[in-house]
Amino acid sequence: MPTIRSQISISLDGFVAGPDQSFDDPLGEGGERLHDWAVNSAGWRRRHGQEGGEEGPDSRVVDEGARGIGAYIMGRNMFGPPGGGEWDASWTGWWGEDPPFHVPVHVLTHHARESIEMQGGTTFHFVTDGIESALEQARAAAGEQDVLIAGGANAIQQYLAAGLLEELHLHVVPIVLGGGERLLENVGDPKLEPVEVVASPAATHVKYRVG
Amino acid sequence: MPTIRSQISISLDGFVAGPDQSFDDPLGEGGERLHDWAVNSAGWRRRHGQEGGEEGPDSRVVDEGARGIGAYIMGRNMFGPPGGGEWDASWTGWWGEDPPFHVPVHVLTHHARESIEMQGGTTFHFVTDGIESALEQARAAAGEQDVLIAGGANAIQQYLAAGLLEELHLHVVPIVLGGGERLLENVGDPKLEPVEVVASPAATHVKYRVG
Repeated sequence: MPTIRSQISISLDGFVAGPDQSFDDPLGEGGERLHDWAVNSAGWRRRHGQEGGEEGPDSRVVDEGARGIGAYIMGRNMFGPPGGGEWDASWTGWWGEDPPFHVPVHVLTHHARESIEMQGGTTFHFVTDGIESALEQARAAAGEQDVLIAGGANAIQQYLAAGLLEELHLHVVPIVLGGGERLLENVGDPKLEPVEVVASPAATHVKYRVG
Repeated sequence: MPTIRSQISISLDGFVAGPDQSFDDPLGEGGERLHDWAVNSAGWRRRHGQEGGEEGPDSRVVDEGARGIGAYIMGRNMFGPPGGGEWDASWTGWWGEDPPFHVPVHVLTHHARESIEMQGGTTFHFVTDGIESALEQARAAAGEQDVLIAGGANAIQQYLAAGLLEELHLHVVPIVLGGGERLLENVGDPKLEPVEVVASPAATHVKYRVG
């Protein structure tokens, strides 16, 4: 069965980005440390055409998390550019000509825009009529595969609060950021059940079934 | 080697007590849910003279966590009564005549008070000259055994921020409290390394070595 799922790296004090996010520092101060566990893994490097990296539990988590995704949904803030507002037609995301998605990506926004077909199979669609509509479109695009709510925090919060998220995979990184963007606020009191835990020195990966 | 350690149940959104703590509701709204994993375990029930409870990983975590403690340190708020201030001599803690510590307990306070010898080996000592003095006294009392920083959040924060805590065992409970008392704030940027993870449906137990 296709699953509506999300996966995100989170500090021990609950932040998915550090303080003072900006164009030059999109993950905020210290926020890159949240992704060291992934970036240092062999699985991540293979997917990004690089060599090396560590095999082991973190690498297996990267590989498993990337498998079987038929469509993505992301918030406007994740797509960028920082600041939001009306579109600058030259902005096609942070990821260059060949973004690492390779399937349809549905961007939640208040500003209509024509779809953009990128190289490598990624097409960005812009959805202005809400999260349920975006999910419907993503489900149709994904077919038998999963829909990944890619982020940021606000998009995940909305799907979690609406009872539409079915699985949340948290990569808990043993750092304290002290400020930034929190994941688990304004989400009500969801029923969460840990169904899989994978441990490494770099992160504790806990998969929660929701609802 | 004796270890200076702490162990505490924490919600997925980072709270160790719910909102609106009061005399009738010392863990705040919803805060008792943080301890269900322990209270439902056979290990906890045995320690409290009760029968039944579930064997399994949670019970083993309770048993292991209770072992080898030679002295406790706790904050004034944990000892009570709520509100703080000058002592009411009739207040001897929340735990009745035979508290479940059975070793010396050092209470951090701004108000001097004579030690109180309870039944079963628990003696409460009141320390007014700071966390380092309390630790020195607790270490001396504990001998070859561990010192447990019992809580609440503020006491743990102080020892963590001062670089005096050596091990932090978090029992991460899959609930979202939405408010209350946060553990990991005002602690700086401690170096934390996960050294042991035990998983159950009721909690994910992660032991961090500090520093």
